[in-house]
Amino acid sequence: MNNGFAQLQAQFLRLRSNKLFEGFVITVIVLSALVVGAKTYDNTSRFEQILAVLDAAVTLFFLVEIAIRMAAEPRFRDFFKSGWNVFDLVIVLASIVPIDSTDTVLIARLLRVFRALRLISMIPELRVLLNALVVSIPRMGYVALLMFIIFYIYAAVGSFVFEQVDPFLWGNISQAMLTLFRIATFEDWTDVMYATMEPYPYSWIFYITFIFLTAFIFLNMMIGIVLEVMQSESAKFKAENGEGPEQESRALHQELGQLREQLNRVEALLQKNNRRP
Amino acid sequence: MNNGFAQLQAQFLRLRSNKLFEGFVITVIVLSALVVGAKTYDNTSRFEQILAVLDAAVTLFFLVEIAIRMAAEPRFRDFFKSGWNVFDLVIVLASIVPIDSTDTVLIARLLRVFRALRLISMIPELRVLLNALVVSIPRMGYVALLMFIIFYIYAAVGSFVFEQVDPFLWGNISQAMLTLFRIATFEDWTDVMYATMEPYPYSWIFYITFIFLTAFIFLNMMIGIVLEVMQSESAKFKAENGEGPEQESRALHQELGQLREQLNRVEALLQKNNRRP
Amino acid sequence: MNNGFAQLQAQFLRLRSNKLFEGFVITVIVLSALVVGAKTYDNTSRFEQILAVLDAAVTLFFLVEIAIRMAAEPRFRDFFKSGWNVFDLVIVLASIVPIDSTDTVLIARLLRVFRALRLISMIPELRVLLNALVVSIPRMGYVALLMFIIFYIYAAVGSFVFEQVDPFLWGNISQAMLTLFRIATFEDWTDVMYATMEPYPYSWIFYITFIFLTAFIFLNMMIGIVLEVMQSESAKFKAENGEGPEQESRALHQELGQLREQLNRVEALLQKNNRRP
Amino acid sequence: MNNGFAQLQAQFLRLRSNKLFEGFVITVIVLSALVVGAKTYDNTSRFEQILAVLDAAVTLFFLVEIAIRMAAEPRFRDFFKSGWNVFDLVIVLASIVPIDSTDTVLIARLLRVFRALRLISMIPELRVLLNALVVSIPRMGYVALLMFIIFYIYAAVGSFVFEQVDPFLWGNISQAMLTLFRIATFEDWTDVMYATMEPYPYSWIFYITFIFLTAFIFLNMMIGIVLEVMQSESAKFKAENGEGPEQESRALHQELGQLREQLNRVEALLQKNNRRP
Repeated sequence: MNNGFAQLQAQFLRLRSNKLFEGFVITVIVLSALVVGAKTYDNTSRFEQILAVLDAAVTLFFLVEIAIRMAAEPRFRDFFKSGWNVFDLVIVLASIVPIDSTDTVLIARLLRVFRALRLISMIPELRVLLNALVVSIPRMGYVALLMFIIFYIYAAVGSFVFEQVDPFLWGNISQAMLTLFRIATFEDWTDVMYATMEPYPYSWIFYITFIFLTAFIFLNMMIGIVLEVMQSESAKFKAENGEGPEQESRALHQELGQLREQLNRVEALLQKNNRRP
Repeated sequence: MNNGFAQLQAQFLRLRSNKLFEGFVITVIVLSALVVGAKTYDNTSRFEQILAVLDAAVTLFFLVEIAIRMAAEPRFRDFFKSGWNVFDLVIVLASIVPIDSTDTVLIARLLRVFRALRLISMIPELRVLLNALVVSIPRMGYVALLMFIIFYIYAAVGSFVFEQVDPFLWGNISQAMLTLFRIATFEDWTDVMYATMEPYPYSWIFYITFIFLTAFIFLNMMIGIVLEVMQSESAKFKAENGEGPEQESRALHQELGQLREQLNRVEALLQKNNRRP
Repeated sequence: MNNGFAQLQAQFLRLRSNKLFEGFVITVIVLSALVVGAKTYDNTSRFEQILAVLDAAVTLFFLVEIAIRMAAEPRFRDFFKSGWNVFDLVIVLASIVPIDSTDTVLIARLLRVFRALRLISMIPELRVLLNALVVSIPRMGYVALLMFIIFYIYAAVGSFVFEQVDPFLWGNISQAMLTLFRIATFEDWTDVMYATMEPYPYSWIFYITFIFLTAFIFLNMMIGIVLEVMQSESAKFKAENGEGPEQESRALHQELGQLREQLNRVEALLQKNNRRP
Repeated sequence: MNNGFAQLQAQFLRLRSNKLFEGFVITVIVLSALVVGAKTYDNTSRFEQILAVLDAAVTLFFLVEIAIRMAAEPRFRDFFKSGWNVFDLVIVLASIVPIDSTDTVLIARLLRVFRALRLISMIPELRVLLNALVVSIPRMGYVALLMFIIFYIYAAVGSFVFEQVDPFLWGNISQAMLTLFRIATFEDWTDVMYATMEPYPYSWIFYITFIFLTAFIFLNMMIGIVLEVMQSESAKFKAENGEGPEQESRALHQELGQLREQLNRVEALLQKNNRRP
């Protein structure tokens, strides 16, 4: 029986790496996403029967697909070693659980939406893109912290000074930070400024310095990232090419050394010759 | 007669590559575009006579010009090998056809506008620019797909949760995607946010994460494209210069090899000399 | 007398290149600009006397300064060879002429504002910056032309189709181009779109394609400029360093050639030796 | 007693460089910033007791921490050599002084907010970031001056011509500059333009040229900075690697020179041999 299971596993493995099967899975994921999207239109009543069947089929399909993948692994715990497998399992489990309950329709629907994320784990190019994005997050960490400190200080000042002017925008520090984020995106920032300039005519200094600081830091951050990426790319390029120039010069020195040894022998012979009577 | 047609073709070819003729064609295209633009002003009644004549002349001119180009080709089907010829032919045909009908004035006018696109096929520098743009499209394909998935998921969540708040903005998934595109351009996004923050005070998380995600991906995409273009440019540069350093070092090795051979001969002569009594 | 004028010219030249004198001229230009700016405040009545005197002094000073510079040139027409001299002369002349007329106060004031531009011709670093800007203009020429064609076509389409919706925004082709420029800056573009989406529900395609096209071309243009500047910089750098690697390898080949000649002589001597009985 | 103080100093130094102690200081700074932020919420009455104690503890802590650092320096005046120490001292002193007065609550609070800036002096990575920002300021000096001249001239023109249209926006030169800054951020700039286009239909030229000029200069500035940083980086890289290629070629020339000397000796020996009877 163990042999039979191994055979089954081999078949599953073959099925999983089949291009046609992969295309079919992608089609079902896209269809499933479209079903979720279609539900946002009002006139879904006519398609409701088909949609319900399709939806159940999609859910079942995802469950079977993840089971095949689990069984295809040589050892069960190997399945959890890949972040992508965990990612897929969480999505599938989330889409099964809330089907029973009828009152939490909203949550059920939201969970179903996230199944579209499985497209990323299915298409290799998207996985590469997402990996690149995840890798570049720490690079931005300290700049984000610096930005947060600046936001925090300006938000504290803003909520102390401007609270009476507009409690909705400057009521407390978190509302003030949201308002500052709005100013950083230039969204109707002059309306905010004109309102506070009436009691405090010099409050434009607050806004202009904030805009310059955030824009300045953002600019420096972007230049820094471009430079860092370029340096790491050229370093990688050098490492791959075996640091050509150095190897090259070592070969030249070796050849010149051999020439010198030969000349040494020639000189020795001549001197011996000369000493002969 | 065949000979006479060949002569005619040669004349056409000469005419087509004539700088003056090209300048004249460009002038007529620009004039034709100005005529189309002038029609959008109300006070066109006084110029209507001149405009009608100019318009007919322009249409006739385009027809003759494309016929000359067709005849100038050695074989008829060669004409369709160039994407630019097809591009021009479609524009010319489109501008002739709807002249007969009088009820579809709007479509006739629209088709006439697109004749301005022929400027691009006439000016070599613009053709280079457009080719460069067309070449850079696939490079952005997968990033666009990733962006679309993110837009789709946020749009689905938005249309489920915020539909009651504002049916115009969040009514269905396509309206929600349009609203999200608006938020990505920072266009009055706080109005959208403030509206949904009344029933859902924590909905700012939805907007802030969306803005960060799209800005972050866009930034990474830009850096990636700059790097890719720079690498391909430097690779092209290397290929053109015959990979100089390697050729160079081969020449050095050759010269050193010749020196060694000569030294071998010198050593051999000396040893023979020594062995002599 | 000719000798006396030459002496005067030498003195003028010395004065012109004097650091202190230059500092004084810059101070007067800045002061003059501040006087112009101060006039925009309502409470200028108290300072009016001082301002009038300062203004006349500034005008006189500019006239004398340009006369000194003219006289300092070896030949009169050499003065017009430098674009900066012409630039300064035009500004000075413009600031003298309208002083007589009293009804054209506005124009007189505007002309006086442009005197601040002389700061650019006085400070070398700003001249360098402005030169760099002027040099980079042609580089953007054809991209600007392509952009204009796209704006023109979209404006023509917009003014044909949307004229009834909002005559102010889409009334004629030039108004439509201004509206499109507004959309390209993302300034309340959704208001424009929502208005046209009522009669034409699919008009969002018009706006989204326009935004993508302009953003796409702008992005490509920026990348192109960065690459072009970097290539021209690295080419300049190579030219300055005498194309080091090639010179280097030529020197190596020469030395190796000398070694071979010496070995030839050695071999010849040995062969002669051998042939001796 | 001197010895005892030295021992105390050594202990302080050890404490200051202790990772755990540093972590504790950072925690207190963050907590202190949170306390300041919490005060912006209305429902602070229940926590007021805890907050007051925490606030006093935080203030005391900062005082002790700076005293420890001062005492830990070998000489007192060395403390002021580091800009970061002065930075910290100013913040601490500012947060002690206004505690006594009760009417200037606002100023007291504002000063307390700035204590969050001490995070920057505590975390090394943030110090590096801030240093990089400070270093890049002069680089932008002349571009900022050029930008200011352009803003000034446009503001003067705007306040002369458009003052009657909207005194709030164009009343005097400083208000006009604020309005121009708003236009440069694309914030409701069309509203400003449409208002002035009624009396002056061609005033759009004013806005379009201004937007192009500022965008153009900004773009050139960014490219310039990227290039400058890249050149300085590559120059630094070269200097660190001892200008490898030149050193390399010098070694090759030396070896070839030694070979030639040896050949000279060989040739001399052979000639002596030949001259022998």
